[in-house]
Amino acid sequence: MNIDFGLGNTAEYQVALRAAMELGLAAKGTTSPNPPVGAVIVDSSGRVVGRGHTQPVGGPHAEIMALRSAGNTARGGLAVVTLEPCAHTGRTGPCTQALINAGVSQVVFLHSDPNPVASGGAKALQEAGIAVQQVQAPEGAEDALLPWLTATQLGWPHVTLKFAQTLDGFTAATDGTSQWITGETARNHVHEDRARRDAIIIGTGTALADNPSLTARYLDGRLREKQPRRVVIGTRDISAASKLHAAGYEQYGTIDQALSQLWDTGARDVLVEGGASLAYGFLKAGKVDAIQAYLAPVLLGEGRGVVSASLAGTLADAGRWRTAGVRHLGEDVLWLLAQS
Amino acid sequence: MNIDFGLGNTAEYQVALRAAMELGLAAKGTTSPNPPVGAVIVDSSGRVVGRGHTQPVGGPHAEIMALRSAGNTARGGLAVVTLEPCAHTGRTGPCTQALINAGVSQVVFLHSDPNPVASGGAKALQEAGIAVQQVQAPEGAEDALLPWLTATQLGWPHVTLKFAQTLDGFTAATDGTSQWITGETARNHVHEDRARRDAIIIGTGTALADNPSLTARYLDGRLREKQPRRVVIGTRDISAASKLHAAGYEQYGTIDQALSQLWDTGARDVLVEGGASLAYGFLKAGKVDAIQAYLAPVLLGEGRGVVSASLAGTLADAGRWRTAGVRHLGEDVLWLLAQS
Ligand SMILES: NC(=O)c1ccc[n+]([C@@H]2O[C@H](COP(=O)([O-])OP(=O)(O)OC[C@H]3O[C@@H](n4cnc5c(N)ncnc54)[C@H](OP(=O)(O)O)[C@@H]3O)[C@@H](O)[C@H]2O)c1
Ligand SMILES: NC(=O)c1ccc[n+]([C@@H]2O[C@H](COP(=O)([O-])OP(=O)(O)OC[C@H]3O[C@@H](n4cnc5c(N)ncnc54)[C@H](OP(=O)(O)O)[C@@H]3O)[C@@H](O)[C@H]2O)c1
Repeated sequence: MNIDFGLGNTAEYQVALRAAMELGLAAKGTTSPNPPVGAVIVDSSGRVVGRGHTQPVGGPHAEIMALRSAGNTARGGLAVVTLEPCAHTGRTGPCTQALINAGVSQVVFLHSDPNPVASGGAKALQEAGIAVQQVQAPEGAEDALLPWLTATQLGWPHVTLKFAQTLDGFTAATDGTSQWITGETARNHVHEDRARRDAIIIGTGTALADNPSLTARYLDGRLREKQPRRVVIGTRDISAASKLHAAGYEQYGTIDQALSQLWDTGARDVLVEGGASLAYGFLKAGKVDAIQAYLAPVLLGEGRGVVSASLAGTLADAGRWRTAGVRHLGEDVLWLLAQS
Repeated sequence: MNIDFGLGNTAEYQVALRAAMELGLAAKGTTSPNPPVGAVIVDSSGRVVGRGHTQPVGGPHAEIMALRSAGNTARGGLAVVTLEPCAHTGRTGPCTQALINAGVSQVVFLHSDPNPVASGGAKALQEAGIAVQQVQAPEGAEDALLPWLTATQLGWPHVTLKFAQTLDGFTAATDGTSQWITGETARNHVHEDRARRDAIIIGTGTALADNPSLTARYLDGRLREKQPRRVVIGTRDISAASKLHAAGYEQYGTIDQALSQLWDTGARDVLVEGGASLAYGFLKAGKVDAIQAYLAPVLLGEGRGVVSASLAGTLADAGRWRTAGVRHLGEDVLWLLAQS
């Protein structure tokens, strides 16, 4: 990127942007219905002097947290925020006013605010004499705001379909064994990801067959600090002796009931973890915004597939996705797909 | 890497090593039964002054080509070669003697020569007062020598199983349509790869169903300069009206007959392109050294699988591979797996 913010060093600006994105990611799963925003304050010598992210509902926004940690050093500095600062007085005062009061001279943000009530922040800052610029996310950086942005536009939770399979497309062997298809690194990633979602959804088939707890854990079994809501879709009863009963869960009869109730109660970013017939239901209904596939370097030849029934009888009718990212997780591969 | 070759610059040394590997890759598919070696000569100021790779059988080795292109500037310089220089007088004179005669003062190589007749090169160079060092391949660089090294150790061609599939493991839809699962970038990669192999192998099922030409082409349909041998396995007759008849092909009744005949006639690096029953045959017989999977961001739900029958009825019995590389090819993913 070729922007000179008077800081004399583009590398330092890139570091600040990536730091703001990392801070947003750290808040993911704790902020809904508010967005997981990250913010960084850079002083006029290019040093990062303040860091913050959105606090849980009712708490301060990212910019306020970053300004607090910067204190007086914010004056004359640059604020790098992953979302356009809000201009409205909600449960907290407008962030634009706080940035003006702190005397920052420049503001860089990644995404415009899609919320009509909160938008207009960039304009308000410019009117106060602050230089404002919108920038692109750096290549390869994980953008924690994408699900929230999609959900806000749809008025409906952002849905990620997640599954673990062998290279040749099987989630279990013919005898039903599926533990473990992927290795420790991938399984740890699944649990980290669960903690960053508002809810995890499964079908009654998986609830009854696997008796899962659907918690977000560390490799040693300890619970992570943040737990997502646990949601089951289907009409069959879950046994009172199940782990889900002990951990607490919600159940809905249909996909639409579940998503509409989740939206109304603040969920913006949900993960569908299977099984194959619920995955089919979500895909067939066009309710999947992203796919998160964990692939293990294993060939089974036969077994149970990811999706329970045919989505297209001929290749030309099959939906095409966009590759949003692909990387190693130990010997496994994590492939992220988005709607194209 | 922390080696100072008296060139004053490690970055320049890394550039030379990558250049030698690229040169080896350019020769791949044209040198068997000899290895596709690349060589670079760096002068004492760190400049690359000579480049070469193995010529087709009977022609000069990589070091000789690089020394010729360097001329007098090789004196006092560094030779970077992907394989230990040979010490024996075969169809061409020993490369060690040529390096000594040219006055190079240092030699770096990637792989030891596994061939007992040709080995001993490092020792011969050292005895002539040349500093010799074996090094590791840089992260992410494609190593053209790996198939040849495995083949030489096995006394049997190195076999790569290649397939193109949807994310959920299908090589064709239920109606049989399979053109095109992957995009142009991936298909172009397949053709480039074909030109770098000694032979392409398919089953009679694919030959009869698809009437393929099995040639290596450019995107506009023109033939590439180098064409691999075309091999069909199975007992059924291929029609005299087929494209394979026009292009010329070999047919063998069994996998072992094909591989043994291919080895005896100089092939070291062969590609199995399917179909599913031949893939099953190679996997079940333990004759696959590497897998090259092209995955398209498409879900079909149902269709034809990569392998025609079960390789393992329970997960613990399934063979695990090692991930040798994974990357984007346009919207598709190329996943390289090696034996673990
Ligand atoms: N490897 C992996 O990534 C992975 C992940 C999860 C599960 N699994 C495996 O998958 C198996 C279970 O899969 P499954 O397909 O039998 O069960 P499932 O998809 O978990 O649940 C099926 C049930 O969900 C409900 N359902 C599905 N689609 C619906 C829709 N469109 N609307 C309303 N309700 C819907 C129905 O419930 P009712 O019949 O109660 O109405 C249906 O019977 C287990 O063996 C599990 O181990 C593997
Ligand atoms: N998407 C892709 O990557 C891809 C690639 C290739 C093919 N395909 C599709 O796959 C389909 C054809 O697959 P297929 O499974 O029917 O045919 P195939 O595997 O190409 O050929 C099967 C035949 O090969 C011979 N054969 C297989 N295993 C053998 C072994 N172990 N020893 C000796 N001979 C053996 C037998 O020939 P005989 O019966 O003659 O003795 C057998 O009938 C086609 O529709 C094609 O389009 C897809």
